[in-house]
Amino acid sequence: MEPLLEKIAADREKYNCTVTSLGEAKIASPVRRHDFIREGQRVLMSGDFDLLQAWNEKLGHYPSFERAGAHEKIFHDPSWTRVGIVTAGGLCPGLNNVIKGLVETLHEDYGIRNVFGIRYGYAGLNPAFGYAPMALDVDSVDTIHELGGTILGSSRGQQPTDIIVDTLVRMNINILFCIGGDGSLRCAHEVAEEVLKRGLKISVIGIPKTIDNDLHFVGRSFGFETAVAEAAPVIRSAHVEAKGAHNGIGVVKLMGRDSGFIAAYAAMANPVVNFCLVPEMDFEIEGENGLLRALEKRFAGGKDHAVIVVAEGAGQKFFKGAVEKDASGNVLKQDIGHYLRDTISAHFKAKGIDHTVKYFNPSYTIRSCAARGTDAIRCYMLARNAVHAAMAGRTDCVVGESGELYTLVPIALATIERQHLNLSGAIWRSVTAATSQERLLGPSVPGSEN
Amino acid sequence: MEPLLEKIAADREKYNCTVTSLGEAKIASPVRRHDFIREGQRVLMSGDFDLLQAWNEKLGHYPSFERAGAHEKIFHDPSWTRVGIVTAGGLCPGLNNVIKGLVETLHEDYGIRNVFGIRYGYAGLNPAFGYAPMALDVDSVDTIHELGGTILGSSRGQQPTDIIVDTLVRMNINILFCIGGDGSLRCAHEVAEEVLKRGLKISVIGIPKTIDNDLHFVGRSFGFETAVAEAAPVIRSAHVEAKGAHNGIGVVKLMGRDSGFIAAYAAMANPVVNFCLVPEMDFEIEGENGLLRALEKRFAGGKDHAVIVVAEGAGQKFFKGAVEKDASGNVLKQDIGHYLRDTISAHFKAKGIDHTVKYFNPSYTIRSCAARGTDAIRCYMLARNAVHAAMAGRTDCVVGESGELYTLVPIALATIERQHLNLSGAIWRSVTAATSQERLLGPSVPGSEN
Amino acid sequence: MEPLLEKIAADREKYNCTVTSLGEAKIASPVRRHDFIREGQRVLMSGDFDLLQAWNEKLGHYPSFERAGAHEKIFHDPSWTRVGIVTAGGLCPGLNNVIKGLVETLHEDYGIRNVFGIRYGYAGLNPAFGYAPMALDVDSVDTIHELGGTILGSSRGQQPTDIIVDTLVRMNINILFCIGGDGSLRCAHEVAEEVLKRGLKISVIGIPKTIDNDLHFVGRSFGFETAVAEAAPVIRSAHVEAKGAHNGIGVVKLMGRDSGFIAAYAAMANPVVNFCLVPEMDFEIEGENGLLRALEKRFAGGKDHAVIVVAEGAGQKFFKGAVEKDASGNVLKQDIGHYLRDTISAHFKAKGIDHTVKYFNPSYTIRSCAARGTDAIRCYMLARNAVHAAMAGRTDCVVGESGELYTLVPIALATIERQHLNLSGAIWRSVTAATSQERLLGPSVPGSEN
Amino acid sequence: MEPLLEKIAADREKYNCTVTSLGEAKIASPVRRHDFIREGQRVLMSGDFDLLQAWNEKLGHYPSFERAGAHEKIFHDPSWTRVGIVTAGGLCPGLNNVIKGLVETLHEDYGIRNVFGIRYGYAGLNPAFGYAPMALDVDSVDTIHELGGTILGSSRGQQPTDIIVDTLVRMNINILFCIGGDGSLRCAHEVAEEVLKRGLKISVIGIPKTIDNDLHFVGRSFGFETAVAEAAPVIRSAHVEAKGAHNGIGVVKLMGRDSGFIAAYAAMANPVVNFCLVPEMDFEIEGENGLLRALEKRFAGGKDHAVIVVAEGAGQKFFKGAVEKDASGNVLKQDIGHYLRDTISAHFKAKGIDHTVKYFNPSYTIRSCAARGTDAIRCYMLARNAVHAAMAGRTDCVVGESGELYTLVPIALATIERQHLNLSGAIWRSVTAATSQERLLGPSVPGSEN
Repeated sequence: MEPLLEKIAADREKYNCTVTSLGEAKIASPVRRHDFIREGQRVLMSGDFDLLQAWNEKLGHYPSFERAGAHEKIFHDPSWTRVGIVTAGGLCPGLNNVIKGLVETLHEDYGIRNVFGIRYGYAGLNPAFGYAPMALDVDSVDTIHELGGTILGSSRGQQPTDIIVDTLVRMNINILFCIGGDGSLRCAHEVAEEVLKRGLKISVIGIPKTIDNDLHFVGRSFGFETAVAEAAPVIRSAHVEAKGAHNGIGVVKLMGRDSGFIAAYAAMANPVVNFCLVPEMDFEIEGENGLLRALEKRFAGGKDHAVIVVAEGAGQKFFKGAVEKDASGNVLKQDIGHYLRDTISAHFKAKGIDHTVKYFNPSYTIRSCAARGTDAIRCYMLARNAVHAAMAGRTDCVVGESGELYTLVPIALATIERQHLNLSGAIWRSVTAATSQERLLGPSVPGSEN
Repeated sequence: MEPLLEKIAADREKYNCTVTSLGEAKIASPVRRHDFIREGQRVLMSGDFDLLQAWNEKLGHYPSFERAGAHEKIFHDPSWTRVGIVTAGGLCPGLNNVIKGLVETLHEDYGIRNVFGIRYGYAGLNPAFGYAPMALDVDSVDTIHELGGTILGSSRGQQPTDIIVDTLVRMNINILFCIGGDGSLRCAHEVAEEVLKRGLKISVIGIPKTIDNDLHFVGRSFGFETAVAEAAPVIRSAHVEAKGAHNGIGVVKLMGRDSGFIAAYAAMANPVVNFCLVPEMDFEIEGENGLLRALEKRFAGGKDHAVIVVAEGAGQKFFKGAVEKDASGNVLKQDIGHYLRDTISAHFKAKGIDHTVKYFNPSYTIRSCAARGTDAIRCYMLARNAVHAAMAGRTDCVVGESGELYTLVPIALATIERQHLNLSGAIWRSVTAATSQERLLGPSVPGSEN
Repeated sequence: MEPLLEKIAADREKYNCTVTSLGEAKIASPVRRHDFIREGQRVLMSGDFDLLQAWNEKLGHYPSFERAGAHEKIFHDPSWTRVGIVTAGGLCPGLNNVIKGLVETLHEDYGIRNVFGIRYGYAGLNPAFGYAPMALDVDSVDTIHELGGTILGSSRGQQPTDIIVDTLVRMNINILFCIGGDGSLRCAHEVAEEVLKRGLKISVIGIPKTIDNDLHFVGRSFGFETAVAEAAPVIRSAHVEAKGAHNGIGVVKLMGRDSGFIAAYAAMANPVVNFCLVPEMDFEIEGENGLLRALEKRFAGGKDHAVIVVAEGAGQKFFKGAVEKDASGNVLKQDIGHYLRDTISAHFKAKGIDHTVKYFNPSYTIRSCAARGTDAIRCYMLARNAVHAAMAGRTDCVVGESGELYTLVPIALATIERQHLNLSGAIWRSVTAATSQERLLGPSVPGSEN
Repeated sequence: MEPLLEKIAADREKYNCTVTSLGEAKIASPVRRHDFIREGQRVLMSGDFDLLQAWNEKLGHYPSFERAGAHEKIFHDPSWTRVGIVTAGGLCPGLNNVIKGLVETLHEDYGIRNVFGIRYGYAGLNPAFGYAPMALDVDSVDTIHELGGTILGSSRGQQPTDIIVDTLVRMNINILFCIGGDGSLRCAHEVAEEVLKRGLKISVIGIPKTIDNDLHFVGRSFGFETAVAEAAPVIRSAHVEAKGAHNGIGVVKLMGRDSGFIAAYAAMANPVVNFCLVPEMDFEIEGENGLLRALEKRFAGGKDHAVIVVAEGAGQKFFKGAVEKDASGNVLKQDIGHYLRDTISAHFKAKGIDHTVKYFNPSYTIRSCAARGTDAIRCYMLARNAVHAAMAGRTDCVVGESGELYTLVPIALATIERQHLNLSGAIWRSVTAATSQERLLGPSVPGSEN
């Protein structure tokens, strides 16, 4: 966490905790209610206590964010408010729940009828693509929470900020909700800045979407909980196949290009996993502390099967060659899943050891299902609070969560950098305990010994 | 929250935030690790900010708890440690995950082999019942996380504290883990006190189990997340049946004798619910603001179906007669589900309005399934931290959670009283928004108007 | 089976195997295809071999039905064909699949665009109710297979035959598909007869819907497979709860007013059931061969839990009093589930035997889900063949299945009487073997001994 | 079907319908029962009527098989019977149900206690591998039906017949149950022949296991139903991802090396599939009738997404190069899934058409889950009838099913050749109708036109 604090301290103006307002809110909220928030109410960031202390020492104040919620006075006049909703980047469980929550809260709490779904991400705000927006109302979103994906469609990659703002102006949109990951949110940030520069009164509010759960300051991201749960049947299958053959090895590749949250959580939630490999850790395949030797030791120790969960971004050091990027600029990783499958198979074949390797790649199936249970509630709460923030005239912020309280976090701070698994923390320690991998594979944290 | 603070202030000695220790921890932890907690580290309670302030004003300090985790020095000698595990009260998703987590952490982190599963709750600690304990090891708990329920069996009701302590002494048990609800935890508290009174060195550590999610200071309880998710197919069925008939009405009764957390969360997670009735709210069935009239208005307004979710403890004012209690002393409630079904049916029949009422009572099915995904992780983390606490010589406390950090909370404070839905809070507001019930049923909070 | 054959033999004209045609089919099918059936092709009824023999001995011929499928020449002119679809009676998994299959086959294979969904069962064909029909096309049915229930709504009870035929004439409908149970099909039969009497050219084709799988001659009914699968989690819950307490008893009530097919199949598919009680069997609760004594013997034999599955129509002899009927004329049964729960509980309480009874009533949840897998395929195949039959000018028949071949069965024969579990057959024997109940409960077939 | 009949006619002695008996059954069955079958009872094969006729014309008799069931007189003396159970080849849902059914029926119906689970397929019958058998009893199989896979483990490939028979003799096994596919069953056939040649009295009974549902004369194979149902969430995901992007294309590869039953059934059961490609069909990728052009036409026609299901053995003509085989001698196919993904992507990229291809390979997940519902019942019934057949002294046969009646089919006939989808039949026609692929892709049956 220290490098992060250094980064914040180095540019305190950019990375502050204060949300931008478009102006003074003077209009009475159309719905009388018992849960208006007090103006100025703030929420102390929950989470790691040491971080709170370090923050105070470094910056002279504890980290806290404006509490999200319904305001008694609002900024935008509901009667002329026109809203755009855009979903950008890869799919994530709960996108439709968020859309539904936005449309319903706009309608029920503020009486707003002019809501437009932008098609296929930011491309839908670039006339060059010719995608007409969808009119959204409470009827058209009635049952969309049962469906995975997004009814609006999505796309990767940005569009020119100027063109986006021009489109918003032409469409008379004064509130834009952007449901997207850090790339898409940075684009929203640029839109918000351009809006301010032009002196427009358009609220740009983000709802952070990252199936990797890798944003700072916003709490657990929606969809993550469902994705972790969806990994269960695949890991169960890998275990069944591994046990179904002598020295059977099940290899499961899970999402996670830069961080191993899904892999780590899935391994903990399904304690049949014997090895969990994530991008944050350094590990060897060959050699005395390597994975192959660890498998041999496991088999020699009387266990005749093994289940390996590997995040797609793990072990990239084993690959050489040119760097490939996708349309959003994400670095495409070499396929560690196939690499493990083939390397393990070749190794045991060469050694004449009876074995079977079964490979599993659930790919998008863990993200394209509908959000369930408490994850669906998170989507709904994020959407409600995004609407309240927009109506109160806030802009350039996302909705976060901290200990079941919802907060508003400036986009710059939320996207300052991607979060990674802390290999010295309790979560990873629990993973190594649940898998018992440390005994065979060696410590993943240099300097620690078991 | 104010009455709760009054209660704490009135007996500060009883309801303090400091966990009892059996003595100085002098033994080096057998496993070297990178995630030892600093002694004295504390976690500020997350949650409602106003509560933090009020607490400080009233008690002169902010509420904080000892951070749970592995200690460098431990109190109990692993080589002679004998552990008992008891599950008490009703079933809850994740019980087996907790048992597995306890056994594995005792074994992996401390090398402890003498672990005994107490059968059928506290009855298993009363020789009068003659239930022999089960020896537990990592093999016998290997796959129990796939099963609902508890492999130990459970029972309601207490056993005499003296007899329990006598049994612990006779069995040479120096660590007892109690997985149970507030009644069972109070029993554990009495055991812990009796242990201290006798000058014994037995750690009594609780893992709070309440499917109703109704304990203070410990965060979301394990199993709750799964139970909320499990309610989805039943509510979906009720919706399908309601839409399958003209003026179809689906009534779903969910668990929640004293609090409506399951009903409220399930209604939010499944936004096809039109009315959510909980114990905390006052509502009428007859009259202009009554449920029957609300249904009529809904049908008249062009909607020809309705889904009602009712917590089992809601609307008890409609029943007269003697109070019944179960073996744990819980007050048995009259059946509001049948009452609603029959009353609604009779009303529309009397009025000659075409209608169909379909009744759903998933009863125990939402609690007897296995914990899934992040809920399973919660179980595992609670178990790990309970073991660490016990080995460090802590007693008379439960493991809680606050913003993904785990804490130790004295049993007295955790069981001070059951938590209820705050009808003025954001959660309930979201329920009324998701259901739109306020418009038809009237406000559930006296004084608020819509 | 013998009484059934007697019944057929007694009125051979009424209960014959020949499907009625409206007239000679002269129009070339608009789609050239490779799977036209040969005119006159018949399918020998599969199933019990003894039945085939007995049939031949009694009636002088083996039972065979016209094979269903696409005809090279059709009767109705697609360009003026107007179709009505009605769903009647209780819900069943797959109703929407059938509707979708009908609409798509009419559209894709015959180019028919005028398809009307009749609302709320036969009531939608009685102008007195004022339910406007829904226009159906391939877009409006695109995703309905994902939903349980019927998008048309349903209702119980008949409407006057005259009024129905008047409505068909007024709506210019020349094909009516009736998806319904035996009551609804008999109504369709009367409509078909009235149509013929009036010299109209309206095809009336039934798709048999009975979640109880209790019709003769038509093979397994759609939805049954899904309903059996849906019972699994409830039975698993009952098992978990039963094992979670000392002498725990889980009682699960399943659908089946007159036949025990669902209960029997669910017990076989979930071999944790210890007692399966169905309407076809005679059993005692009290006495040496009674259920209570059987439970005692089981507990005494070292098993400390029991799971009982009971069909709702079982054990009606234990109830006295007036007979109640629902709108379709089905006899309403007293609640055997509650009766067992209370009787068992009272018995063990009186005997001072520690026990816990947990009651489960999944009610409609096993029927209001969507059809899955091969069950969805069955729906689709029934729908396709119903369309082919109608277009070929057949009427007064249902589509059946026999060994993966589809057939046309006259309604009179299909509804001749409800089928029951054969207590001397292999299925029931398997149930008694899977449950081992015969050893404790005594034989369910008088005269047999174990 | 004609070539199959020719094959049978060419070697009538080898491919007859009569099951081999080890000798006269003289021992009274230990359990009195009401469902003994009549000796000599036969079941007429159900299924395609034309086949029955053709069979009769060609061979002079209709195809019929001995009815399976409990016999009043048995051949093996239960008191000295020792049983081996082997599972061979790839996993399949329901293996554990079959094992459980065998063990329970042996125990409950015949009092047999000496049952041995052979580990890892036929390798477990070759001492060279050193795999000790598992003793099986009703307790050890009590809950295995909840688990996917096989508790015995499996392996591909045969072992020398001599060695297997030697092992059976050494272990004093007089009944061997082989649960396996056509390769494994042929091995069982050789074992049965060697047994007879040596004059031994060992019953060798097969339970046909083929997830591809591709054996003749035995009806639907166990596990197939579950596998088809398990494909649903993956196809749903592919649909969601395809709709989530502009011109999104979801490609799903399903099992089926030589036949397309799983792919075809899954496409029919999930009517969001637009193209279903199976090994039996010839199709082009390039050219006017090719898949790429069909996708273009679909997009041009206003649909901006497509879902393609492809069986792993489809389109092998697109691959050149050396033939690879696995340990069972199955020809390993080139990866049509990756080939389609890459070819489609390259095509649209080259044409500058906006598109996204998402690839899904559920691989083993559809086969390693537990059997459910009616599929579980099928397993149980097959197991029961296999035991009855063995005890009656039958050998060299498998248990089949025909219209809910169970039959005994000589192994030679059951494994005569693998079954394929009939592209002129009703099932495939339904697939082309459900997908509407014929209109875009051209007819899959040469000569047919649409």
